[in-house]
Amino acid sequence: MSHIITLTSDFGNADHYVGAMKGAILRINPNVTLVDISHEIPSFGVPIAAYVIGSSFLAFPRGTIHVVVTDPGVGTSRRPILLCTENYFFLAPDNGVLSLAAERDGARAIYHLDKPEYYLDHLSATFHGRDIFGPVAAHLAAGVNPVRLGSKQDDFEKLNLFRISRKNNKLSAKVINIDRFGNVTIGMTFEHFRHFIKNNKFEFTIKKQSFTELKNTYADVQPGESLMLVGSSGFLEIAMNRDSFALLYNVKVGDSVELTV
Amino acid sequence: MSHIITLTSDFGNADHYVGAMKGAILRINPNVTLVDISHEIPSFGVPIAAYVIGSSFLAFPRGTIHVVVTDPGVGTSRRPILLCTENYFFLAPDNGVLSLAAERDGARAIYHLDKPEYYLDHLSATFHGRDIFGPVAAHLAAGVNPVRLGSKQDDFEKLNLFRISRKNNKLSAKVINIDRFGNVTIGMTFEHFRHFIKNNKFEFTIKKQSFTELKNTYADVQPGESLMLVGSSGFLEIAMNRDSFALLYNVKVGDSVELTV
Amino acid sequence: MSHIITLTSDFGNADHYVGAMKGAILRINPNVTLVDISHEIPSFGVPIAAYVIGSSFLAFPRGTIHVVVTDPGVGTSRRPILLCTENYFFLAPDNGVLSLAAERDGARAIYHLDKPEYYLDHLSATFHGRDIFGPVAAHLAAGVNPVRLGSKQDDFEKLNLFRISRKNNKLSAKVINIDRFGNVTIGMTFEHFRHFIKNNKFEFTIKKQSFTELKNTYADVQPGESLMLVGSSGFLEIAMNRDSFALLYNVKVGDSVELTV
Repeated sequence: MSHIITLTSDFGNADHYVGAMKGAILRINPNVTLVDISHEIPSFGVPIAAYVIGSSFLAFPRGTIHVVVTDPGVGTSRRPILLCTENYFFLAPDNGVLSLAAERDGARAIYHLDKPEYYLDHLSATFHGRDIFGPVAAHLAAGVNPVRLGSKQDDFEKLNLFRISRKNNKLSAKVINIDRFGNVTIGMTFEHFRHFIKNNKFEFTIKKQSFTELKNTYADVQPGESLMLVGSSGFLEIAMNRDSFALLYNVKVGDSVELTV
Repeated sequence: MSHIITLTSDFGNADHYVGAMKGAILRINPNVTLVDISHEIPSFGVPIAAYVIGSSFLAFPRGTIHVVVTDPGVGTSRRPILLCTENYFFLAPDNGVLSLAAERDGARAIYHLDKPEYYLDHLSATFHGRDIFGPVAAHLAAGVNPVRLGSKQDDFEKLNLFRISRKNNKLSAKVINIDRFGNVTIGMTFEHFRHFIKNNKFEFTIKKQSFTELKNTYADVQPGESLMLVGSSGFLEIAMNRDSFALLYNVKVGDSVELTV
Repeated sequence: MSHIITLTSDFGNADHYVGAMKGAILRINPNVTLVDISHEIPSFGVPIAAYVIGSSFLAFPRGTIHVVVTDPGVGTSRRPILLCTENYFFLAPDNGVLSLAAERDGARAIYHLDKPEYYLDHLSATFHGRDIFGPVAAHLAAGVNPVRLGSKQDDFEKLNLFRISRKNNKLSAKVINIDRFGNVTIGMTFEHFRHFIKNNKFEFTIKKQSFTELKNTYADVQPGESLMLVGSSGFLEIAMNRDSFALLYNVKVGDSVELTV
């Protein structure tokens, strides 16, 4: 069995960046299995990248190495880090992109990747996916001990991804993702929701559309009708059966929603 | 040699869905080779998915497992099935998406995937690619006998993909796909065409453009000129040399065409 | 360790073409590692494909086989070739798409792929990625000697990709690529630039915007400000920190730029 390295970035699939990063990994360690999560993260979209990796990493085998490169601060003093959680390894710029993953799997150790001997020989100032994160991931997969890859540090950047605020019987939350089908992910987990509403009736409002119950799946309503459900990553979701809720109601990431009991 | 699993879906390449499905497969069986056919099938585009997998599966080695998830009815009573053909395995919702593949390779056995012990432990209502199809494919690749994966069933859903109708000396057919180059695939194979026209002259009409002979390749006409040929998947195709026929004549999937002898 | 085959094309990721090409490779040689560089090369975009493969092939291990299929002349007399460079193998139509790669790694031998016994059994006239380039790459990876795959030829097509012209103290060059972030790649390497300006002051002009110094990385200027730097592939680059220079100034591939000392 070979080590698995997953890749998430805002590089897009048209340019040569993803290919070059993979080449740099395979050059050091040809025995890895490379898996793309997404390279279509919006440019510099750190919170969406945090959601995407945070919603997918748990599906992978224990020990998988997850590389996440959405890096508006490339070449500045922001640090490249290795985050070891209970079951996985994460390599990313220290800009908050690992917030959700760390919350879900528990941070155990953090290393500042400050050992150039594990970088590409000629380090560019603008492409650390190929020059730092890829090569370090390849060495990690080859068995190099994390303590040799960098200096231990105490903490790492965390984003307040969900920005939930409470006022009496009302929670305010945000849209954190919109998928290809126009399904809208709300920055509130089902656990959080259940803890807040308990056994009470509720009203959830987004773009003046109101929902008062959770459905199980899209086809529980007629085609073209809207519904509220728990999405496959554990977050509240607003969708339409066989149509795009986001398109019809012009929903954007960052839009506010309200939950009242 | 490891088992090959191909993946075709309407998940898109931006969201985390494809990555999560791959993780679920590798978690069960890390020794598979995963190959993407396409994840850019139009949302809920069952007939186009049927064309895409039906045009590509034969290129793969015998024994390849093809997973096809275009699933507008996810979470409803539509069944997840395993279709064994002469040379391949197909896992898909039973919604007709395997129609062309089955026609081309011969259905041998059909199983309703009703054994939750081969699913992901926590089954969601909206993501059966990750929770059912991926895991079952991984077990199949690991050598689990199809009869253990589900209950045998007699038949499966077939779509009338091509909707060819005949009236005297005239065949009416449909546009079934338009590719990135604007080449237009007609829902009529060369065999069907040849059987109908025999040795007679013919006239093929699409969007008031008329064709009376088959060319061999795009460059057989001048740049910017249109032509009719047999596409690389065996279907009739209308194209332009170095330009987009579909764009210039505003062709859409489902448009009607006519063939007269 | 298995052989690596990289794939670059203008097939797009929506159609079945990439999947079918991979199937054709794996059918012959299931022990290869397939890596996509890009399939989103603009249709028939030979110069951009030349830039994309020329900017990424060096990241891969020695001996990697690079397949590049951007092939407006498919089915005509343009030849399918194997180009052996100092460290790599390239399979492509002989249309100039290997110009930059050959310049960077040194052409050693060229073969016309004229041995149908290494093609797919049934050769189509329009899909040589699946029918010729893929299968020949698979045989090459399996150890077939290049001399058996084709007849030696003396030369291959080279494009004048950069079209730099000099007039006294002024160089005129072209935009050769625009990436997802709107960063603009100029068809002039840093070496060429340095050799021309020596230790003199310079002025670089694009779309009436003027630059007189090279920065190190994007964050060396304020968000929304423009800069000139050396890109990660060794070419001059014009960019904006956290925004798209190409979008704001409507830059297109092929636009002219000027460098004056």
